[in-house]
Amino acid sequence: MAIKVHGLPFSIATQRVLVTLAEKELDYEFVYIDLATGQQKTEDFVKLHPFGQVPVLEDGDLTLFESRAIAQYIAHTYADKGNPLITSNPKKMAILSVWTEVEAQRFDPQAYKLAYELVIKPILGRTTDEAIVTEHEGKLAEVLDVYEARLTQSKYLGGDSFTLADLHHLPVINYLMGSKIKALFDARPHVSAWCADILARPAWQKIIALMKH
Amino acid sequence: MAIKVHGLPFSIATQRVLVTLAEKELDYEFVYIDLATGQQKTEDFVKLHPFGQVPVLEDGDLTLFESRAIAQYIAHTYADKGNPLITSNPKKMAILSVWTEVEAQRFDPQAYKLAYELVIKPILGRTTDEAIVTEHEGKLAEVLDVYEARLTQSKYLGGDSFTLADLHHLPVINYLMGSKIKALFDARPHVSAWCADILARPAWQKIIALMKH
Ligand SMILES: N[C@@H](CCC(=O)N[C@@H](CS)C(=O)NCC(=O)O)C(=O)O
Ligand SMILES: N[C@@H](CCC(=O)N[C@@H](CS)C(=O)NCC(=O)O)C(=O)O
Repeated sequence: MAIKVHGLPFSIATQRVLVTLAEKELDYEFVYIDLATGQQKTEDFVKLHPFGQVPVLEDGDLTLFESRAIAQYIAHTYADKGNPLITSNPKKMAILSVWTEVEAQRFDPQAYKLAYELVIKPILGRTTDEAIVTEHEGKLAEVLDVYEARLTQSKYLGGDSFTLADLHHLPVINYLMGSKIKALFDARPHVSAWCADILARPAWQKIIALMKH
Repeated sequence: MAIKVHGLPFSIATQRVLVTLAEKELDYEFVYIDLATGQQKTEDFVKLHPFGQVPVLEDGDLTLFESRAIAQYIAHTYADKGNPLITSNPKKMAILSVWTEVEAQRFDPQAYKLAYELVIKPILGRTTDEAIVTEHEGKLAEVLDVYEARLTQSKYLGGDSFTLADLHHLPVINYLMGSKIKALFDARPHVSAWCADILARPAWQKIIALMKH
């Protein structure tokens, strides 16, 4: 086993990779990258990640970046380990891909911005921009209306079981649960039940424990 | 053959699906959706696409939305038709996924905004916001610097051959080539050669012909 993750425990994109590894019950070495001192922009690090960001995954001689591409790689390569995060049925896989795209294209652009303004900026001692919050809150509500309808028909976004389509949401939702945006999730019963379900998964609880260290 | 595409020829996301079908030499029925009259928001259409947008693909009893998920489905399901757009080698596939994520996460948010301001708004009789153009131009230039380095090592973004990682760029690049943003591509020799190469592909030329009808 020679899996290495470069990142830091508070980073949303890093957490996406760590929870995937936890679901798969895979061991890895964690290499802490100090964003505060700009370690991600050093010449050495940019060789691993041309955009100078975290996370990076190394698995033997393979080096990957982009958290969702890494999660997909882990889910496919270690399909027989831990919990299945994808399906081998091509039609079901197509539906799963639709909902991973929805997360990346529609949910994340709104939700990440909100987490940044309401959770990350205060940690960094910066001031929340309320105009940005209001704009993105309205747009996120529209996305969650579609989620509510979807989750009325299907237990999880990607289908009947928990998959990458749900997992990709975890880090941002976890941050938003500590902000006033929680009300948007609580107001929608199926969305609210889905959040409670996925946040309670043992793999996610491991990541929470890691953040407390 | 019972493939149906709902969309319109000028839509960037629709073109992404059409060029994938053209690369795969697949026949399909095209269902024109009139965005000008809001047909995409009608009750009937929202049953196909819960966010009320185009494109939608129907293949037999399967209904999909999100252009990149559709392209992936076509590439996998019709792997033996037309040109290969993915690879069966897992490590190469992981690298390909990294670069499809780069397109979706880093290139498109900048490039689409620029195409919208500089090409689509003028068509709609609206005024370009120059401040938005300046901001996104700078960010796109940074992305293209990474592309230039990548394309110095590898003929295509995803690897040695043309794949979805390149294809996903086509519609936006085509629109930007008719704007002042062309200069950003022209200034980088490997990026410029790559653009010329992928835009000249017979499948893309078919989509251009379709737009002229
Ligand atoms: N789309 C990327 C986003 C990566 C990202 O935004 N990383 C942040 C931390 S969550 C980072 O490295 N920020 C430092 C910087 O940009 O310099 C992914 O999913 O991996
Ligand atoms: N992420 C979506 C984007 C789809 C999209 O933006 N579609 C536009 C046309 S290119 C649309 O339907 N606009 C009409 C509307 O939003 O009402 C995809 O890739 O399919």
